[in-house]
Amino acid sequence: MTGRNTKVTMRRHPAAMVSEDDFAVEETDLPRPGDGQALVKVLYLSLDPYMRPMMDPVRSYVPHLNPGDVMPGATIAEVIESNEPELPQGTVVACSLGWQTHGVVTKDVVRVIDQNAGPVSAALSVLGMTGATAHYGLLELAKPTPDETVVVTAASGAVGGVVGQIAKIKGCRVVGIAGGAEKCRYVVDELGFDACIDYKSPDFEKQLAAATPDYVDVLFENVGGPVLDAVLGRINDHARISLCGNISDYNADEPYGLRGLRHLLMHRVTVHSFVIAEHRDYWPTAIAELSGWLAEGKIKYQEDIAEGLDSAPKAFIAMLTGGNFGKQLVNVGA
Amino acid sequence: MTGRNTKVTMRRHPAAMVSEDDFAVEETDLPRPGDGQALVKVLYLSLDPYMRPMMDPVRSYVPHLNPGDVMPGATIAEVIESNEPELPQGTVVACSLGWQTHGVVTKDVVRVIDQNAGPVSAALSVLGMTGATAHYGLLELAKPTPDETVVVTAASGAVGGVVGQIAKIKGCRVVGIAGGAEKCRYVVDELGFDACIDYKSPDFEKQLAAATPDYVDVLFENVGGPVLDAVLGRINDHARISLCGNISDYNADEPYGLRGLRHLLMHRVTVHSFVIAEHRDYWPTAIAELSGWLAEGKIKYQEDIAEGLDSAPKAFIAMLTGGNFGKQLVNVGA
Repeated sequence: MTGRNTKVTMRRHPAAMVSEDDFAVEETDLPRPGDGQALVKVLYLSLDPYMRPMMDPVRSYVPHLNPGDVMPGATIAEVIESNEPELPQGTVVACSLGWQTHGVVTKDVVRVIDQNAGPVSAALSVLGMTGATAHYGLLELAKPTPDETVVVTAASGAVGGVVGQIAKIKGCRVVGIAGGAEKCRYVVDELGFDACIDYKSPDFEKQLAAATPDYVDVLFENVGGPVLDAVLGRINDHARISLCGNISDYNADEPYGLRGLRHLLMHRVTVHSFVIAEHRDYWPTAIAELSGWLAEGKIKYQEDIAEGLDSAPKAFIAMLTGGNFGKQLVNVGA
Repeated sequence: MTGRNTKVTMRRHPAAMVSEDDFAVEETDLPRPGDGQALVKVLYLSLDPYMRPMMDPVRSYVPHLNPGDVMPGATIAEVIESNEPELPQGTVVACSLGWQTHGVVTKDVVRVIDQNAGPVSAALSVLGMTGATAHYGLLELAKPTPDETVVVTAASGAVGGVVGQIAKIKGCRVVGIAGGAEKCRYVVDELGFDACIDYKSPDFEKQLAAATPDYVDVLFENVGGPVLDAVLGRINDHARISLCGNISDYNADEPYGLRGLRHLLMHRVTVHSFVIAEHRDYWPTAIAELSGWLAEGKIKYQEDIAEGLDSAPKAFIAMLTGGNFGKQLVNVGA
């Protein structure tokens, strides 16, 4: 097998708002698969908000990136050359090769994808990290009971959309928060939330109050910032918050000053922060249940697919600023 | 029994910083005990930070106070006239009569105090709500393991002092935060904490980092504000925060803007907010264990006793601004 591997690296730590200049595209020779290894060609790359804080040189749940490092990320790839009998040529696998076109894997670091179970890209969204995040954060941590009110921020986003649909399956009242009328329409009309509030509306807080007459029992939080403060003002006694993301701060010069600590205390709220990569043994449970709901038509999802690895930086930046619509993928194999 | 009942009421909602003008002293006739009731004379009143947010007309865990209401609070009282055989004259009870000199109780709303078990006032501090709060918030919610680092804010305060001593009994490294060199000396020399940092020091954050070389596994938080942000900057992976108080905000014009949400997420922190009044069935467990430790000399406590009910507003204000030293009581029976 001859050819070249193209990869996108972090050229420098972003100042605050990440820009395309913070990335570099490099080419190298294709790696060679050794014994028990397979060379794969990436089909799809998943772009996710967690990648942004990894670009900052601070203490975090994973070692931060250094200039020159390949950008990380989950991928779907196809075996094109193999020295591993369990991964014959043509096998499609989920793996974590990051922002590049090729890589070498062993059977221990991949999950083989059933190509008859629907589009292989679903393994990067509702049947992958996205779905596991939604399922774990909502059902294992927040544990909503029927008739409770669940609020989901970034409701039209990849995780948020799945969270809200699971909450509906569980009999909850589900209120989404999203940016713009089009996303809000999608969340209600397509995903079946009971309501969705546009946080850009001048009377956002008033609309939120009207949509949560019994206050908020569960918050699945992806955003942070003033939207979180607004929801804290509606929080109910013994509410549970699953803190999954803080995307509003990722590109900010200064972190937002959250004013609602008082509400946590007054209403005896529990906050669970989590990262799904630490709960790998939970993934099969989540994905099995989500697969069933998907087959029954109870869960819908949307993908926003950028074409070609070169488009990854631009698509990543758009995702961080709300410019995408659904799970952001890159069609690397295009 | 003739005589008068003196009570302190909330005259108006405080603007921000509570002042003595927000209180009024009133006199009424003594109430008369009916069948199954006893008239009691208050000996000690407990002053606690939770009373301050109750003075604000906002949604909270208890109905807020209205102008003219008697200030609430836990009390120790002695039966002076009784129509209840189980509460003969001379019985000393813990009850919740608030800021007044007399009241009428039934046996269902009091806890009889063993007058041979030490000073009766301890039932308002280490062997009462204070001790139960410390025990529950630390051991039931945060669950520190030996060798973990536990940070306690308001470490010389009534709750904080007990929290740190329990954590030492459990084999933890315990770092207090308090205001001023005298309080810090007391926390280390008398209460046995491993270190105590003065949050008023210009190099407070540097001292905190030096005192928490392995970061912070458990935070027992009574204060909020910039001190909380500083501790969040040292928080460890999978840390647990027991959110017990937010005293720095209680008298503020504007709530503090907490900037450290990012650290909660990055380090997968769990935050438990609680109010001990909701866990009454836990009190006997806590108080039994604390009584044992007290008898063995493993727990020390300090009381700051103001003389006479008239002094309650002034003592309350001092407590909210760090002017007290130890559990703030009022000797009402003086």
